[in-house]
Amino acid sequence: MKNQPLGGNEQPRFSGSGTFMRLPSSENISELDVAFLGIPMDIGTSWRSGTRFGPKQIRAESNMLRPYNMWTKAAPFDSLNCGDIGDIPINTFDLKDSVDRIGSFYDQLLLEEVIPMAMGGDHTLTLPILRSIKKKFGPVALLHIDAHADVNDHMFGEKIAHGTPFRRAYEEGLIKPDLVYQIGLRGTGYTAEDFNEARNWGFNVVQAEELWHKSLEPLADQIKNKIADHPVYITFDIDSLDPAYAPGTGTPEICGLTTPQAVGFIRGLKGLNIIGCDLVEVSPPYDQSGNTALTAANILYELLCVLPGVKER
Amino acid sequence: MKNQPLGGNEQPRFSGSGTFMRLPSSENISELDVAFLGIPMDIGTSWRSGTRFGPKQIRAESNMLRPYNMWTKAAPFDSLNCGDIGDIPINTFDLKDSVDRIGSFYDQLLLEEVIPMAMGGDHTLTLPILRSIKKKFGPVALLHIDAHADVNDHMFGEKIAHGTPFRRAYEEGLIKPDLVYQIGLRGTGYTAEDFNEARNWGFNVVQAEELWHKSLEPLADQIKNKIADHPVYITFDIDSLDPAYAPGTGTPEICGLTTPQAVGFIRGLKGLNIIGCDLVEVSPPYDQSGNTALTAANILYELLCVLPGVKER
Amino acid sequence: MKNQPLGGNEQPRFSGSGTFMRLPSSENISELDVAFLGIPMDIGTSWRSGTRFGPKQIRAESNMLRPYNMWTKAAPFDSLNCGDIGDIPINTFDLKDSVDRIGSFYDQLLLEEVIPMAMGGDHTLTLPILRSIKKKFGPVALLHIDAHADVNDHMFGEKIAHGTPFRRAYEEGLIKPDLVYQIGLRGTGYTAEDFNEARNWGFNVVQAEELWHKSLEPLADQIKNKIADHPVYITFDIDSLDPAYAPGTGTPEICGLTTPQAVGFIRGLKGLNIIGCDLVEVSPPYDQSGNTALTAANILYELLCVLPGVKER
Amino acid sequence: MKNQPLGGNEQPRFSGSGTFMRLPSSENISELDVAFLGIPMDIGTSWRSGTRFGPKQIRAESNMLRPYNMWTKAAPFDSLNCGDIGDIPINTFDLKDSVDRIGSFYDQLLLEEVIPMAMGGDHTLTLPILRSIKKKFGPVALLHIDAHADVNDHMFGEKIAHGTPFRRAYEEGLIKPDLVYQIGLRGTGYTAEDFNEARNWGFNVVQAEELWHKSLEPLADQIKNKIADHPVYITFDIDSLDPAYAPGTGTPEICGLTTPQAVGFIRGLKGLNIIGCDLVEVSPPYDQSGNTALTAANILYELLCVLPGVKER
Amino acid sequence: MKNQPLGGNEQPRFSGSGTFMRLPSSENISELDVAFLGIPMDIGTSWRSGTRFGPKQIRAESNMLRPYNMWTKAAPFDSLNCGDIGDIPINTFDLKDSVDRIGSFYDQLLLEEVIPMAMGGDHTLTLPILRSIKKKFGPVALLHIDAHADVNDHMFGEKIAHGTPFRRAYEEGLIKPDLVYQIGLRGTGYTAEDFNEARNWGFNVVQAEELWHKSLEPLADQIKNKIADHPVYITFDIDSLDPAYAPGTGTPEICGLTTPQAVGFIRGLKGLNIIGCDLVEVSPPYDQSGNTALTAANILYELLCVLPGVKER
Amino acid sequence: MKNQPLGGNEQPRFSGSGTFMRLPSSENISELDVAFLGIPMDIGTSWRSGTRFGPKQIRAESNMLRPYNMWTKAAPFDSLNCGDIGDIPINTFDLKDSVDRIGSFYDQLLLEEVIPMAMGGDHTLTLPILRSIKKKFGPVALLHIDAHADVNDHMFGEKIAHGTPFRRAYEEGLIKPDLVYQIGLRGTGYTAEDFNEARNWGFNVVQAEELWHKSLEPLADQIKNKIADHPVYITFDIDSLDPAYAPGTGTPEICGLTTPQAVGFIRGLKGLNIIGCDLVEVSPPYDQSGNTALTAANILYELLCVLPGVKER
Repeated sequence: MKNQPLGGNEQPRFSGSGTFMRLPSSENISELDVAFLGIPMDIGTSWRSGTRFGPKQIRAESNMLRPYNMWTKAAPFDSLNCGDIGDIPINTFDLKDSVDRIGSFYDQLLLEEVIPMAMGGDHTLTLPILRSIKKKFGPVALLHIDAHADVNDHMFGEKIAHGTPFRRAYEEGLIKPDLVYQIGLRGTGYTAEDFNEARNWGFNVVQAEELWHKSLEPLADQIKNKIADHPVYITFDIDSLDPAYAPGTGTPEICGLTTPQAVGFIRGLKGLNIIGCDLVEVSPPYDQSGNTALTAANILYELLCVLPGVKER
Repeated sequence: MKNQPLGGNEQPRFSGSGTFMRLPSSENISELDVAFLGIPMDIGTSWRSGTRFGPKQIRAESNMLRPYNMWTKAAPFDSLNCGDIGDIPINTFDLKDSVDRIGSFYDQLLLEEVIPMAMGGDHTLTLPILRSIKKKFGPVALLHIDAHADVNDHMFGEKIAHGTPFRRAYEEGLIKPDLVYQIGLRGTGYTAEDFNEARNWGFNVVQAEELWHKSLEPLADQIKNKIADHPVYITFDIDSLDPAYAPGTGTPEICGLTTPQAVGFIRGLKGLNIIGCDLVEVSPPYDQSGNTALTAANILYELLCVLPGVKER
Repeated sequence: MKNQPLGGNEQPRFSGSGTFMRLPSSENISELDVAFLGIPMDIGTSWRSGTRFGPKQIRAESNMLRPYNMWTKAAPFDSLNCGDIGDIPINTFDLKDSVDRIGSFYDQLLLEEVIPMAMGGDHTLTLPILRSIKKKFGPVALLHIDAHADVNDHMFGEKIAHGTPFRRAYEEGLIKPDLVYQIGLRGTGYTAEDFNEARNWGFNVVQAEELWHKSLEPLADQIKNKIADHPVYITFDIDSLDPAYAPGTGTPEICGLTTPQAVGFIRGLKGLNIIGCDLVEVSPPYDQSGNTALTAANILYELLCVLPGVKER
Repeated sequence: MKNQPLGGNEQPRFSGSGTFMRLPSSENISELDVAFLGIPMDIGTSWRSGTRFGPKQIRAESNMLRPYNMWTKAAPFDSLNCGDIGDIPINTFDLKDSVDRIGSFYDQLLLEEVIPMAMGGDHTLTLPILRSIKKKFGPVALLHIDAHADVNDHMFGEKIAHGTPFRRAYEEGLIKPDLVYQIGLRGTGYTAEDFNEARNWGFNVVQAEELWHKSLEPLADQIKNKIADHPVYITFDIDSLDPAYAPGTGTPEICGLTTPQAVGFIRGLKGLNIIGCDLVEVSPPYDQSGNTALTAANILYELLCVLPGVKER
Repeated sequence: MKNQPLGGNEQPRFSGSGTFMRLPSSENISELDVAFLGIPMDIGTSWRSGTRFGPKQIRAESNMLRPYNMWTKAAPFDSLNCGDIGDIPINTFDLKDSVDRIGSFYDQLLLEEVIPMAMGGDHTLTLPILRSIKKKFGPVALLHIDAHADVNDHMFGEKIAHGTPFRRAYEEGLIKPDLVYQIGLRGTGYTAEDFNEARNWGFNVVQAEELWHKSLEPLADQIKNKIADHPVYITFDIDSLDPAYAPGTGTPEICGLTTPQAVGFIRGLKGLNIIGCDLVEVSPPYDQSGNTALTAANILYELLCVLPGVKER
Repeated sequence: MKNQPLGGNEQPRFSGSGTFMRLPSSENISELDVAFLGIPMDIGTSWRSGTRFGPKQIRAESNMLRPYNMWTKAAPFDSLNCGDIGDIPINTFDLKDSVDRIGSFYDQLLLEEVIPMAMGGDHTLTLPILRSIKKKFGPVALLHIDAHADVNDHMFGEKIAHGTPFRRAYEEGLIKPDLVYQIGLRGTGYTAEDFNEARNWGFNVVQAEELWHKSLEPLADQIKNKIADHPVYITFDIDSLDPAYAPGTGTPEICGLTTPQAVGFIRGLKGLNIIGCDLVEVSPPYDQSGNTALTAANILYELLCVLPGVKER
């Protein structure tokens, strides 16, 4: 029998372990199909910090989730053996070393046939993940849901920061540019090139304004047709959501996605060959209700429900 | 002359009594057409508590409401004599006793021709209300707006809790199953049966996903046609709303209704034979702006505006 | 070279001056095309206070904004010389004197060819601004985006308060009634006359319900056609937005505009002969995330982007 | 039988009326010995506002108080008939008018043999109270516990504001200067005259530094000896307390009194001929735990316990 | 080697497991000398709820604690094998059943030679613990540090609630009355009997006023002399502390202990034959800084440091 | 005439520039005697982050301070020309680079005869300051008021972090060990060596327990006698204060100093040859009242008042 989240009838939900969805804490990765893990860092942030506490609060709020998806009928824990493997011991005093540590951890992790589901942490963390992913899968397709393009060449002179990972990924050939989708971008910038340069690389940039007042399911369909069965990595920045829906983040931008848009979009991705995901930029001090972290936990759960192999019942 | 809310030109709104909309505090129920009352309890909750302070904060925030509905032109205080009859003295240390106390209170209250408008408190309170309602009206139609179906057989072994009232109501014949509408259900569960079993009883279950991105007025029309002039009770769980709109609640679920959806829906119900309402699950500690309680006060006001007998001007 | 906001690569955004967008602090108004200024008052409010800290927090949150509009391609700082001229030294103990001080300040300010962009503060401040505006431009067209009509004859017997400015403006002939648009009005009132009286004066009143679930761009087009090149003043009350999007305000009303609606509307105004703007009613103590002030800063930025003379690139 | 607070065994404490200590709401002042009342204003404040919600929150938190003083054995409700007479309808848009309204209200109130216990509201309110007090009692002794002397000649040119009442009271002969005690003053000022001028008038100024690390009971004894049976008014500004003990106030000053110091001091006043009290400057938005208001409610209760005629048992 | 807390150099403190001090999660109680456990309940509270989240937040904040006591030089983890055994699965819908569950759990737990250190949860939980304790040790000495005596006969008619455990314990002979110390009691009550009745039973009641402005070490000495080597249970209600030091609790009372007083007192207890401890009434929603829970974690740590067998180095 | 803070009668205190005490913003350092500056960093923190916003909030709250010290009669702005020189543009993505930038900035700054008063930021910043200080003054005396010794050899392998500066300073000969005073240390550690090793270097370590319940003025006297006229640097970590007094900090430790203790201590230092100061570790997200930053502003002001050359009047 596969690992199951601890249910509310066995232990009240405000009790029990601090793992994601109160799944078993797993040491033996080789037994897992899906590994939830935390990457608690905020030293790559440029405005408000606090994302170092993101994994802890996402796990805490995930305790309210039940195993079955009432709309899509996905029953992920029937099909996949899931566990929470804890946090990567990042070096909170050195961003570059943290990036290296994440890389080494993922290199090791990906020796197993496991899909990593990372809880951030700031968006810098996606770069070392993509580096490890490439070693195993070659350049991958990328779904990048975010308010920001994160393709700066540098921030304050630094090549590594939460605003640069996808330029680095492009430069390093970690991703297939024409299979990159940046969804939800908006706000202010410096020039039109902030988005257009990546378009010239081949990235498909979908600005938030293109999505206002409507469902994102057609977009999901279009993406599925294009990516087909290419391995795809999904990185979901919580600030892709409007701050009304996710106030607890470090660089909020108004006019973002609603949660029905985001969840509808994710559900529309069922069928893709997803080989890993992350959810980043939850900053607990800026939402003391905990609801941003709850939203993050739900997004991770919805991503879990569309992983390859998940059956419905 | 009927009771009127105290106006802002007589007393600044941050002042004055703590009753709903600063209505008179009423002892003599026989003079009332509508009785607002509080049921301050949270011991039926399964995750975050705090709803025991719901009635107090809903009343406080309701002080900003004025008497006339600028859109529908309803003038409820012209037509109905309304008062705030205070709180039911529940036993905060015993859920079952509290349920009995609510039942006894309502049995007595319903000896008068008064429409009760209850402010919760957790959703457990609707069960004893429905029991009293049945004694007077027989099985009623039920509009149940909520994120959760609340049809568990038990929670942690208990038959009485905030997740079970509508199974009990079904079992006890308090409601007419084919005239039950559960609207806004969503989130995670255990199996498809969580919603489908009630569908098999005859309940009309409308999941939130069916309602995304659109007006609920057609749904209201359809419901009115079906229920016609059958007596109908309305129970509105504030967590039917998306947490962006109502963060201060105990078991928030993302992807819920917007307030325009909810208010548009309620306005569409004008003409139904509503015989009682409740608004539940406002938890003040989780929204320190007070806006969730303000939203609850508005929902109650909109329900008041569609009660039988309310005229427009 | 025109004034430029201080960029994040020169100084981290959580650092630097407290001016709007970290623009230069300007003493010499004659060099400016656009003057941002604060009017920190809350003694005109009728419910929650706190807007006296609005300008300070809007400036603080504006530090995250960059100079270029990624959607409209407006580059306002290429075209217009902008500066922050500080706050009007209002008399926080006397509302009428504050109104006079604002008037005197604007009389002086408008001797220059500068577009004032005021950060409030409560809505009382718009009356003296309109008085000064009239001296220079005669009666102007007015776009008034708000949850409330603010056309009370008095509040608690007072002619001057945050609920009366637009009746005063009408009475004093400061505005051209048929070129007044009140957009987003909603909630509760006293009689239908609360909105209709102004309609009878010629005001175009667009209630929020007319706008639910759709884009406001058609409305913007219609307004542009009507106003044409008449000088127009824009006053944006942050409570026009739904409290989900702007919880930090003094008299929130549910069922309001979303930020995509509001921003889409503003963008649709490009081409109007805007001669001044204000953004009012941000109350920091009621949104400790700072996101309401961030939203306000964005609204001001979007208004800047549609000022006459702003070029795209 | 005298009025009694509603007990927790009759109605859970989070329920029931919003009056002070859940005392009866009284209309007939002639039956009362002690009248609790609210003066909800904040337009006299110079820094953070919000005290307009002070009375409401003090009453809410007072619901936890029981009738008997476990240390002094005072049983105030055995001896004195107490009631809550609601709020003075101040004009929140005009400070001077509010001052007049408070004066008129107190003039009327003091026609009865009742001791007023006012809940503020900002400190401006004490001036009109003292004016009314003088009409009945002549110049009174004054105990003024505060972080600030509030003897400015003006604030921003205004003679009436929360920093000026005690200069006005001195000028108008409302108080007997040598029977004035200002206790807890501290912080920063403009010159030594800020405190010394009042010393020259005869005021007894006790700076907080003189009180650090010790009991204030000797000070209370010394004051009692001096004032003897002269009528004395007590005004307690919650910011006399250290912000650790009372964070929710508008102009906090560090290094203030502890609650044991303040409560010990008040208890030491038993025997004085107290003819009225106020408790001012609680600003709810700045302490969302409610504990500052709870502290204020306790201070008011302790003052009640030392009123003339209160017996112990 | 004994269990050691996970150190900050192995894993950043904001990371890692959610156990107390990041100790190993223990299943095999027989290997433990000390068992930390949570009892997450709040349905016994009479005012603010929220203590159900107490254990979770105390554990979270305890992650900042290091193993060695810099003042007393106690090194508890050198001497005692400690572990976190998780939470008791209480029934959050039934207080009486929860009491039974706690009793059964402790009956089983105390079959081992382990000292339980419980994290609450509301104070009701101490009654079933004392019942189990008695079965093993006979009537014990009791140190009860609290703002409240908790010796009500009933609350709202209920014999079991957070205000009654020590009357029940007395009636049931669970404690030796002359070896009971109630320390820090204060506030308001109903009659002098609220404290004196227990004094007549033999309880030693030390009111907070007796302790103001001074060290509690002499009191600790006196208690040690009296109790000598009798088995003693310690129950520490966080509301014994002043709300300045512990705002996050359900029934705060002003004028309480400072943390130096409380910690100095606990340190003075070294040498007592302590056989169990609990720390109760931390309510996270009322202190969003987390500092109340941090204080609670420190109190538990200091109690650990004075357990029998702990050596210094 | 020297620079003066902007007064409340010129501009309401909630208005005006964001500089420290609304002093002029200074570019020309050679005209200054005292330079206030911000060092907005938090990437050296090991637990909660957020101190990057410290300088901004300290300045905001300092707006309430007036120029004259009512107790000591110091009038610092009569004697010293003070200005706010803004923030050091640290590199928020690289701690080591930030340390270098601070060093370079101070090297340049100290070419002038100016006393730097730095607002942090995390405690890492004191190391590069001391390095620059040494270049100008040689090894200095050091007053280090803090909950933590900050003499770790490394944190998570890093030599540079907020827990290591004073070991580095000792190793590099930046300070005179026998003239180092560490005051207020407490809490938990790893071994007695955590404090004793520094004692062996010559540091004078005064643990908080030695200071409980009493004035620190005798300690100040003793220190003055020892240090005499040696140049002395003062670094004040806000977490030296008890969390009741300063909740908004990253690594709070209970049982700390009260503000009367800290302020009394600083006042006792008058006469020392102070050549620079810093105030560190204010983390705004953890105290939303702003009072921790207000306390920090007061501490800086009190330090200003004891600088050499400040006269009384």
